[in-house]
Amino acid sequence: MRDRADSPRRGRLDALHMTHERATVVGGGVIGVSWTALFLAHGLHVTVSDPLPGIETRVRAAIAQIAPTLADLGLTVDGERLAFEPDVSVAVATADVVQENGPERTDVKRSLWASIEQGAPPDAIFASSSSSIPASVMAASMKQPQRLVVGHPFNPPHLVPLVEVVPSPDTDPAAVQRAVDFYRAVGKRPQVLSREIPGFVANRLQAALFREAVNLVAEGVVTEQQLDDVVTSSIGMRWAVAGPFLTFHLGGGPGGLGDFLTHLGPTLEALWSNLGSPTLDQKTADLLRAQANGFDGPVDELAQRRDAGETALMRALGELPAHA
Amino acid sequence: MRDRADSPRRGRLDALHMTHERATVVGGGVIGVSWTALFLAHGLHVTVSDPLPGIETRVRAAIAQIAPTLADLGLTVDGERLAFEPDVSVAVATADVVQENGPERTDVKRSLWASIEQGAPPDAIFASSSSSIPASVMAASMKQPQRLVVGHPFNPPHLVPLVEVVPSPDTDPAAVQRAVDFYRAVGKRPQVLSREIPGFVANRLQAALFREAVNLVAEGVVTEQQLDDVVTSSIGMRWAVAGPFLTFHLGGGPGGLGDFLTHLGPTLEALWSNLGSPTLDQKTADLLRAQANGFDGPVDELAQRRDAGETALMRALGELPAHA
Repeated sequence: MRDRADSPRRGRLDALHMTHERATVVGGGVIGVSWTALFLAHGLHVTVSDPLPGIETRVRAAIAQIAPTLADLGLTVDGERLAFEPDVSVAVATADVVQENGPERTDVKRSLWASIEQGAPPDAIFASSSSSIPASVMAASMKQPQRLVVGHPFNPPHLVPLVEVVPSPDTDPAAVQRAVDFYRAVGKRPQVLSREIPGFVANRLQAALFREAVNLVAEGVVTEQQLDDVVTSSIGMRWAVAGPFLTFHLGGGPGGLGDFLTHLGPTLEALWSNLGSPTLDQKTADLLRAQANGFDGPVDELAQRRDAGETALMRALGELPAHA
Repeated sequence: MRDRADSPRRGRLDALHMTHERATVVGGGVIGVSWTALFLAHGLHVTVSDPLPGIETRVRAAIAQIAPTLADLGLTVDGERLAFEPDVSVAVATADVVQENGPERTDVKRSLWASIEQGAPPDAIFASSSSSIPASVMAASMKQPQRLVVGHPFNPPHLVPLVEVVPSPDTDPAAVQRAVDFYRAVGKRPQVLSREIPGFVANRLQAALFREAVNLVAEGVVTEQQLDDVVTSSIGMRWAVAGPFLTFHLGGGPGGLGDFLTHLGPTLEALWSNLGSPTLDQKTADLLRAQANGFDGPVDELAQRRDAGETALMRALGELPAHA
């Protein structure tokens, strides 16, 4: 690895006051690659640690696929600052930040974090991308569980701004703040949850809407494609700009959310009691699978179209003070 | 009212082949005004029918407020094509389209539709903006219930593309198709539901997500403002571009939604069973009301910012073939 003295000083990295120069990304899967591209694009040196043979070729190829999307957002990925080290204790030896993206298995996470803690500098930021295992569980084998937070991105992290920062009851508030500062410095919009809860916030909300989506398709009210179009042409475009609470706050007129609840609370509660509770049994899964054939194109083409849409949206909203 | 012969022929109206020149908007409240502005902006003559004294001044003032937003989207509102007629039977006498936005009361709706049917030409399109009373209930006093559909917009209709077209069991499929064609001609994205269901689709999905949003705030996991920021910076921006089914279809990799359900179905079902079931009791309503004070500005200012964001988003996505 290079010496700190010859690190380039430029762009957003300046805002970090050179406190985060070196990131170690543990796990070179889809999420790890996406973080790697983002960190490189913000001027960090990145070491990817993954024992898989051929990982360097895979990761570099995947980053080359992501680079054009980041270029669309004005960010350049410099592959010369990317290194690989399969031994995780060695890979974290000079890290300012460790972002871990190992398999979602408790035993693997615990073992990884024990090794990371052993090898990393005492002031390195420790964050796990885990979507389902809380920091309190992962930190069971750590000597300093107060250092660990979950830093859960919404896929893909190089594009979607949200990072859910979830402390365990043991996490030091200073560790939370340092993680938040770091994510902001690489252009993310971190949100700190007050406590651990299954699915965190975004996936719980997504699951809640999807449950009713499955119900409406299973009941034959609309098709998957119709339901998607309902969402993109109404609540989706609304929630890209104003969240659900602000939406209803503005729906209440000058009296805001208070008036909204007074006038429409009973209607809302009646609707809640009318929502469906589908299961993903064989019949429902078969129906959902069959209707998914109606999407017009192969998955990679559709994903490219979606990413083009999201970058266009981000550019458009990025111009607004509310999203600056 | 003017004679048909001197109607201007221009813009999107050409696409209508001059079959819809005259709209009657029944009810001059917020939704009626928004439809009126949209119809004017697409070159139609509009008659607003509302018995409220001073309605013309109110409606013209409200349209003047909307006009700049439509101008942002390249649409001009011509107030010279706007007329007022308090007697609904007279107001619909030469209408090609009647869009009704009366109070959400069954007796009022039934009486309005009986009068509209009596006064309107035999080939006029009949649509109600009702969000809660199905066409089958409103049409109870009509001689030709097969003519009526619900054409439910997502507020505000001059901006948000969705219109949910909901037939009753009696509605003639040809009436549904004519309503769809009309909404498309004025730039909307209509979706036809297979049958009547409380809340239709968009409001059911919105209610499902909001229920869990209320749960997370009531449980103290995040504040309203944090939750809104989680949504705008993740699922909101995602669903503005790709709906929930396409999102999970792409989340499944090359195998699409089928693989997604195989791998993540159990996780999703576990999350469903963990979601909250809050009520809007006094304590919860008080908390929601109190936190709404945290939104930074008066409602009208916040609404203007939201509308600016939505027009920026629509311009950005409108450039994409998928949204053309």
